[in-house]
Amino acid sequence: MIATTAAANSKLLISVEALDTFCVSALKKVGVSSANARITSSVLVGTDSFGVFTHGVKSLRGYVRRLKSGGLRADASPAIVKQGPGWAIVDGHSGLGMVTSTFAMKVAIEKARATGIGYAGVRNSCHFGAAGAYALQAARAGLIGLAVANDKPSVSVPGSRRPVLGSNPFAYAVPCGGGRPIFMDIATSAVAGGKIYQAQTFGLPIPSNWLIDSEGVPTTDPNGYPETKTLVPMAAHKGYGLALFIEVLSAALTGAALTSRVGSWMADDPSLPTNHGAAFIAINVGSMVPLGSFKRNIDRVIAEIRSAPLAKGAKRIFVPGEIEWEKRDRALKHGLELPSDVVASLEGLAADLQMKLPRAPKQKQRHKP
Amino acid sequence: MIATTAAANSKLLISVEALDTFCVSALKKVGVSSANARITSSVLVGTDSFGVFTHGVKSLRGYVRRLKSGGLRADASPAIVKQGPGWAIVDGHSGLGMVTSTFAMKVAIEKARATGIGYAGVRNSCHFGAAGAYALQAARAGLIGLAVANDKPSVSVPGSRRPVLGSNPFAYAVPCGGGRPIFMDIATSAVAGGKIYQAQTFGLPIPSNWLIDSEGVPTTDPNGYPETKTLVPMAAHKGYGLALFIEVLSAALTGAALTSRVGSWMADDPSLPTNHGAAFIAINVGSMVPLGSFKRNIDRVIAEIRSAPLAKGAKRIFVPGEIEWEKRDRALKHGLELPSDVVASLEGLAADLQMKLPRAPKQKQRHKP
Repeated sequence: MIATTAAANSKLLISVEALDTFCVSALKKVGVSSANARITSSVLVGTDSFGVFTHGVKSLRGYVRRLKSGGLRADASPAIVKQGPGWAIVDGHSGLGMVTSTFAMKVAIEKARATGIGYAGVRNSCHFGAAGAYALQAARAGLIGLAVANDKPSVSVPGSRRPVLGSNPFAYAVPCGGGRPIFMDIATSAVAGGKIYQAQTFGLPIPSNWLIDSEGVPTTDPNGYPETKTLVPMAAHKGYGLALFIEVLSAALTGAALTSRVGSWMADDPSLPTNHGAAFIAINVGSMVPLGSFKRNIDRVIAEIRSAPLAKGAKRIFVPGEIEWEKRDRALKHGLELPSDVVASLEGLAADLQMKLPRAPKQKQRHKP
Repeated sequence: MIATTAAANSKLLISVEALDTFCVSALKKVGVSSANARITSSVLVGTDSFGVFTHGVKSLRGYVRRLKSGGLRADASPAIVKQGPGWAIVDGHSGLGMVTSTFAMKVAIEKARATGIGYAGVRNSCHFGAAGAYALQAARAGLIGLAVANDKPSVSVPGSRRPVLGSNPFAYAVPCGGGRPIFMDIATSAVAGGKIYQAQTFGLPIPSNWLIDSEGVPTTDPNGYPETKTLVPMAAHKGYGLALFIEVLSAALTGAALTSRVGSWMADDPSLPTNHGAAFIAINVGSMVPLGSFKRNIDRVIAEIRSAPLAKGAKRIFVPGEIEWEKRDRALKHGLELPSDVVASLEGLAADLQMKLPRAPKQKQRHKP
């Protein structure tokens, strides 16, 4: 059932189901199979339901543009092109990153079930949304999951004034007793570019360790990003080193484009493939230790972390992923409140495809703003 | 040949060979076999030669104290206790962390050669020195290496006022064409505790994102660490999440002690084992892609990074590990200049064991101070 509310200032309250139905329809309209449309929508809507609006359905309009122009192939099927007992290289054939990545993590899980630990590297992929989705795919199957990917350079390295590496994401997920895996999904840049755009919109200064200006000097003025200003890596040389490692796992091992050769899925000619790379590692807990005792151990660590003495002003200590799970609970119960930039993108997509974004008559909002 | 120089203010200029000979002798004197003494000394002296004086021979006195008291067993041999095609769990039997970890990475390399990717988890180990040593062991063999370990809690998490997780190190190394692997070896705390001690010694304030006080509030005063003040994680929730992931790989999968149950190799009763955990992953590049073309790709990325436009004031862009390799070159050519805290520890060790720290007549120093 579709039940949505148009909120003030262009926000939109929409049920998770209604949003999913809309996204699946949009993808099918440009030639994606039902199965692949469902996979893609599930990753994107799932990401929004975690409150990560920068990496969810907001991107769908851009993917659809590429699907229509040929840079993304609607009919592509990812396939294993090389493999061994514990590894495989998957060619995405320029299909949707969500489809290729879900397939590749499935392969990594199968390999891990056979050998204990499995690696699936990916080439000829595109932007895959949020890395956490694939790490969670493994954790839901009872395995530890790790997901990384490269991207077009947007982040400086210590000593450079312009982008050298992508904001190469790193995500992991670990099964635990409560049924809700621990998970973390981070960029290796100090902050996501979206936070800089936000500061521009609201005319706010930014901390001095987020951005450098055209000379490579730290700046607190967000304006001019990304044309002349550049993100800095998380924790300086540490984020730089981690991003480079991700580049190796995602591209040097797989045959995907490396660093500056990766295409921009947003800005480049949508008829050309981007050749993003990615890598997925699964560890089969159950081959090494009884899964039940492993989960009990994790639960004990979680309990210990939660009960640590609180810092002044702190109300609670969260374990990685907990904030996101609670947001998902609220979204499933009360609907998703999409921010205005996401709504604008969906409205544009609906117009592009001559579809209608589902809007229900105004209702009382039952969730906190 | 022993050729050393006693420098001013208790520094010591000593050849890498002479330092190694001294450490091997010290370890043999407390019952460690020649082979294991050489492995241990090689890791420790190698770490000093990279300029990482906090994790090298400075620790030897503490290890020797535990060897004499029984918390570390001089005659222990690490052994595989469980295994599958791509994984193994190694029990260190409370032997030296360097011996157990070198053995475990060898196992991970063998597994990776068989399946493409290998995992070796370790229990009943102790402090293993610098994680980078084991990552490099894989890279020297032509594989990608990853090394992590847990430790007694010394780092807060967002919202806590006291230590919750160890400074759990993360290291990787990647073979490349020049023969010198790219490598990074980092703590998941914002800084190493050693930097706080340094600030105490010199009476200097510290940046506000290194340490929290007894109430969990950021402080710029290094005094009171570690009794009432606590390190913060690298990049806030990102370092916290990474440290927890390392805890899972090193301990939840292996049967090693978790978080607060890990012993302190420095402060606890030296007759009791610490039960540190660790994990080593090796990826056999050559099974996936011809090693030569992989290395050429890495070299091209390195060249691209090095030639990026420089930030104002920057002289050069370093790739991960490059600073350390250049320090090693100087150490091999001109000798190692050990800082005074390392010298004091070695002198204490020499006194404990009724040995003599090698000192040569004063020479002209040929290296930069």
